[in-house]
Amino acid sequence: MTFDYTTTIRPNLPVSPKPGGQVPAFNFVGGNMDPALIPVDDLIAAFTSVIEREGPSLAFYNTGTGPLGYRPLREFVAKTLKKKAAMDISADEVLIVSGSLQALDLINQLILKPGDTVIIEEATYGGAMSRLDALGVSYEGVALNEGGICMTALADTLERLKDNGVTPKYIYTIPTVQNPTGTIMPLDRRNRMLELADKYGVAIFEDDCYADLIWNEKRPPAIYSLDAANEGRTVLYCGSFSKSVAPAFRLGYIVADWAALKHIVPMKTDGGTSALSQMVMAEFCQTKFASHVSESTASLKEKHDVMLEALAVEFGTIVEVQPAEGGIFLWIKLPDTVDTSVLFPAAGAEGVAINPGSEWTVDGPANKNKMRLCFGSASKDEICAGVAKLAEVCHREFGIPLRSGNVQR
Amino acid sequence: MTFDYTTTIRPNLPVSPKPGGQVPAFNFVGGNMDPALIPVDDLIAAFTSVIEREGPSLAFYNTGTGPLGYRPLREFVAKTLKKKAAMDISADEVLIVSGSLQALDLINQLILKPGDTVIIEEATYGGAMSRLDALGVSYEGVALNEGGICMTALADTLERLKDNGVTPKYIYTIPTVQNPTGTIMPLDRRNRMLELADKYGVAIFEDDCYADLIWNEKRPPAIYSLDAANEGRTVLYCGSFSKSVAPAFRLGYIVADWAALKHIVPMKTDGGTSALSQMVMAEFCQTKFASHVSESTASLKEKHDVMLEALAVEFGTIVEVQPAEGGIFLWIKLPDTVDTSVLFPAAGAEGVAINPGSEWTVDGPANKNKMRLCFGSASKDEICAGVAKLAEVCHREFGIPLRSGNVQR
Repeated sequence: MTFDYTTTIRPNLPVSPKPGGQVPAFNFVGGNMDPALIPVDDLIAAFTSVIEREGPSLAFYNTGTGPLGYRPLREFVAKTLKKKAAMDISADEVLIVSGSLQALDLINQLILKPGDTVIIEEATYGGAMSRLDALGVSYEGVALNEGGICMTALADTLERLKDNGVTPKYIYTIPTVQNPTGTIMPLDRRNRMLELADKYGVAIFEDDCYADLIWNEKRPPAIYSLDAANEGRTVLYCGSFSKSVAPAFRLGYIVADWAALKHIVPMKTDGGTSALSQMVMAEFCQTKFASHVSESTASLKEKHDVMLEALAVEFGTIVEVQPAEGGIFLWIKLPDTVDTSVLFPAAGAEGVAINPGSEWTVDGPANKNKMRLCFGSASKDEICAGVAKLAEVCHREFGIPLRSGNVQR
Repeated sequence: MTFDYTTTIRPNLPVSPKPGGQVPAFNFVGGNMDPALIPVDDLIAAFTSVIEREGPSLAFYNTGTGPLGYRPLREFVAKTLKKKAAMDISADEVLIVSGSLQALDLINQLILKPGDTVIIEEATYGGAMSRLDALGVSYEGVALNEGGICMTALADTLERLKDNGVTPKYIYTIPTVQNPTGTIMPLDRRNRMLELADKYGVAIFEDDCYADLIWNEKRPPAIYSLDAANEGRTVLYCGSFSKSVAPAFRLGYIVADWAALKHIVPMKTDGGTSALSQMVMAEFCQTKFASHVSESTASLKEKHDVMLEALAVEFGTIVEVQPAEGGIFLWIKLPDTVDTSVLFPAAGAEGVAINPGSEWTVDGPANKNKMRLCFGSASKDEICAGVAKLAEVCHREFGIPLRSGNVQR
């Protein structure tokens, strides 16, 4: 028999392209990391140690220890955030989730319904906007500069919304290595954001998923840490092991007080996040996290510098790019004549994957000359060759750059 | 500052009890398995082998191979289902998910909206009903007997709904080791269900998550395999590694044609299921799955027999219980004077965890004298001691059984 799905499934569902699953030759997109940095031997040692000791507990959902996640991993997260981000939290404020993408989904599910409004950064993670679109939630973009969100712009937006009778549900911010601009918000702005959130009765959703990857390893306290309340906090916080160790573990965490977690836990209907991933990660992190992050960050900084240099060599003075303070990407401005939505498929056809500016900004048309390039997974040689290829495609499509790599095109 | 969550979060959200995370002394609930059966050495060998070979691919989301999941695991699933369940499928019909609970959520998200109606078995997995309740979906229970769903009752229900202008969205069935009754639906009923689904234009959701655990290792073909269409199938299928290997891996799978998968993939917004879990599972299963399942099933059958015997010794002739054909649970009927919703907290206070019949049936009040007891994770000694304790509590609460274990109470 042939079944008519069109009458059975919900209408207007998105469609996946037939999944190919090929990594492009020059992979300047996505939160992927460097295959050369995966600590294979240390992971084998960690797995062997933890499974010899605790393997039988895999027979239980959540290893029999409840829905917040594997306790040693939650304790590691609490200890590390206290040390790095001045967050004075206990393991009971930490919910392990299947990557910070699940954190986004759960926090959205906690707070948002169709018709709601939220505030986001004018340039931000594309997946945050696509989620809001899918939920029927409106978003207002707020201007960014070298210190992240401009607080006057935020105050103006909050006031304007208030005048229109709108209380936004949260301010979504990536304050520590902003995606895509790579900036770190200074302490005074963090305090100011809390004041504004309090004044207007708006929650703050602090996404710190790149915060482990800072060139000088110093950072201001998390906004969460500046929120004095113990119960009834203004801030919901998330982080990730995807950038600090590897995305394929699918491990992230929500930090929130019980007033919020008590509602989030029942929404996490997946029977727990992979305990295998959690156990290996916890065991690895006890002894190796700090040195691994230092090594990764040093390598990423080198690749960041290589990409900046390659952009200068291949594109010359026509690109404007601010060095990042950490992370895995650069946010690049090209002349107005370039449309990166057109560059995107042309470059893709030659094996160069980029994020066009329109997908990473609230006002797409105004940012069509921008693009995000990730240097997380490509090697230095791939970065040089890929940026050269991108310049070649850009010249072919838009006539610029006129010269690159000392070659007249 | 103190933030007022009540005005920010969505109204009427469920609340989690403060998570304690203690496994009860006599753990007769949940899909947990036997800690003694976790193949620690084989898992370490599998992990070492696969991570030495492919560890660097952990740097990529989905190991860089696309959203359907780790290909060797999908190929193993396809090969195994072909052999065991006569499902002539390719790896491209298999989507790896984070446990069959995620399969339930994704298939519900594909099909259901508030106000819809579905058909389920009159006694079924409690988590399936709680999901439907949360979605605002109505369900009709259909009578079961020793061969699973009664096809005359199913036909009557479909006809009655049609008369009322209702087309149910799917028939949810656990045909192979039904939860909680432990029966296996024979081939003729499977064919008949497909005929009825076709006649009334209703999809079938076939949940085979216990199907690896059959005492005689023989089973009828999956309903999916009897559905002749290649595109536009009537049947959506799910299975799990939680029972055959271990729940804490969080690995299950949806089998469906691309007409359905193309919509499910974009709904799986978690950035992929733990590749670490998938890689270890695939490597382990290549050489050890068959022997591990045989060993587990033999052990479960012994514990099944021990629990039946303990029930006979402790409760005598007042319990009615049908031996299961596989799986990890027994469905038990007590005299009408017993209310298992009252027995549940009383037994829980003494460390005996049970599933009261009202939580596992559509018509709770009519099944208050029933209960589900799982023997998956408890040892034989724990089964004997736990059933004795349960009889003692039942006697104290309801005056029956009068005698047990040759002791007058």
